Amino acid sequence: MTVTREDIQAAARRIGGRVRRTPVLQVAPTLTFKLELLQHVGSFKPRGAFNRLLSAKEQGTLTGQGVVAASGGNAGLAAAYAARELGVPARIFVPESAPAPKVKRLKTLDADVVQVGSEYAEAYAAAVVACEESGALLVHAYDQPEVVAGQGTLGLELLKQVDGFDTVLVAVGGGGLIAGIATAIGDRAQVIGVEPELAPTLHRALEDGQPVDVQVGGLAADSLGARRLGSLAFEAVRANNVRSVLVDEDAIVAARNQLWHEYHLAVEHGAAVTQAALLSGAYRPGADERVLVVVCGANTDPSTLD
Amino acid sequence: MTVTREDIQAAARRIGGRVRRTPVLQVAPTLTFKLELLQHVGSFKPRGAFNRLLSAKEQGTLTGQGVVAASGGNAGLAAAYAARELGVPARIFVPESAPAPKVKRLKTLDADVVQVGSEYAEAYAAAVVACEESGALLVHAYDQPEVVAGQGTLGLELLKQVDGFDTVLVAVGGGGLIAGIATAIGDRAQVIGVEPELAPTLHRALEDGQPVDVQVGGLAADSLGARRLGSLAFEAVRANNVRSVLVDEDAIVAARNQLWHEYHLAVEHGAAVTQAALLSGAYRPGADERVLVVVCGANTDPSTLD
Repeated sequence: MTVTREDIQAAARRIGGRVRRTPVLQVAPTLTFKLELLQHVGSFKPRGAFNRLLSAKEQGTLTGQGVVAASGGNAGLAAAYAARELGVPARIFVPESAPAPKVKRLKTLDADVVQVGSEYAEAYAAAVVACEESGALLVHAYDQPEVVAGQGTLGLELLKQVDGFDTVLVAVGGGGLIAGIATAIGDRAQVIGVEPELAPTLHRALEDGQPVDVQVGGLAADSLGARRLGSLAFEAVRANNVRSVLVDEDAIVAARNQLWHEYHLAVEHGAAVTQAALLSGAYRPGADERVLVVVCGANTDPSTLD
Repeated sequence: MTVTREDIQAAARRIGGRVRRTPVLQVAPTLTFKLELLQHVGSFKPRGAFNRLLSAKEQGTLTGQGVVAASGGNAGLAAAYAARELGVPARIFVPESAPAPKVKRLKTLDADVVQVGSEYAEAYAAAVVACEESGALLVHAYDQPEVVAGQGTLGLELLKQVDGFDTVLVAVGGGGLIAGIATAIGDRAQVIGVEPELAPTLHRALEDGQPVDVQVGGLAADSLGARRLGSLAFEAVRANNVRSVLVDEDAIVAARNQLWHEYHLAVEHGAAVTQAALLSGAYRPGADERVLVVVCGANTDPSTLD
């Protein structure tokens, strides 16, 4: 199964009016931020969730049983938000260990939160079973064609909003966002995937020639902690010659603090990895290289900004 | 002395490249935010400061003595930032009671911080004397033509960025921002000044037919706590039929929390008054009225977001 640029264009038509067209901010002659952290529920994820739900609605597979997702993070928030907006119920599966504030936030979005098992793999398995039993629609956090195509609408927006750029830096967890952006942008610019050293799903997949399970941890694991790159993502990054860059924990913290103090953006650690790549020199643009930094998540405890 | 639209156009040419063109974000079919909180040093004030300094530079009155300002808040930060960028020294006068974090932040911008007296009136008096003695350039927080013209560049930007709007909501302290915006926009839209009930400089000036001293206090006093509307502001708001709206403290807190949770913007209390006017119903737009909300400051302690 391959996601095409046409799929992304169809997604853009489908979700138009449901998601915010987030702004860009030029912060230097050759550096521009895409402020996707200002999206509904604080991340890019509603793009994919709305495309998944609205595609199913067109096909008649979105029933009164609504949707199911397994995530206490941005994907869960997005599924719950999209479901509420479209008037269908959402059941979100999270481990029993999920932090109370996350559970509360999902409930604020009218989601039915099901706490099961000790880790996400168990919550995901329970979500799949629940879908099979009920006929509810599963919204995957990254590895579904409709989800990838939805995230890709961010790439189409960039092409319209920014008059020429050479490079886009994108955070990578399961790879849904970079798969969509790389497909949308194709050979119009170089797409660079940035991930924490402690959660190198893309890096290891490119090394091994296939997605492989990796150990994940570190400050950004709550948003970039997928254990393995999605298969759709792997296909898209190979087809579009996406490069991988790793950043360490100190660089992530420094970039997050810089984004707050210098640019007045309160971002989660996972969303700071792209700026971290520039700040730390993990990615060094050429003198006239026009760089776009995608800043993709605001779900953070602001009291930890320093 | 009157500030004209031509003065603002000249200011825009003068400060172009020194300030950020902050983005707008459409959050509903008839509601758009101007994200001026993303400006350098976290408020609109650098627009006025750069115009004041660069005008003086053109006229040969910006000497090696640099600039002087009296403010521990956004105006002080802006004067220090603009001076540093232009390579001249800045002396910032604040009361002895100025909080340590504000003093530290000014020093981070290489400013010479002078703590004098028990309140701002004394710090301001000392700043004026220092200018007279040294030949340094005074940068007023709001009541100087170049400062007003600089802030007005935000209004010109709005006209370019937003394709038609009926109403602009602007926070008012000393009135430099609303004076500039009202002059830039003229009769193209209705300009509404919003201020805390506890710092009603515009409201009282319109009631009395002239700027008068008012008691100021409340959560937003650190940014909107001028004691009296500036004379340039009074002239501009009368010439452009600016209306005044007041919001209470609860509305400010609720709007600030909404801006964080729903829009992922960490703003200072003074910058939340415009959204507070909508949220509380202090200003009620008509059904199809296209409203622009200026969100103008990010200098806040993020740990107080709730």
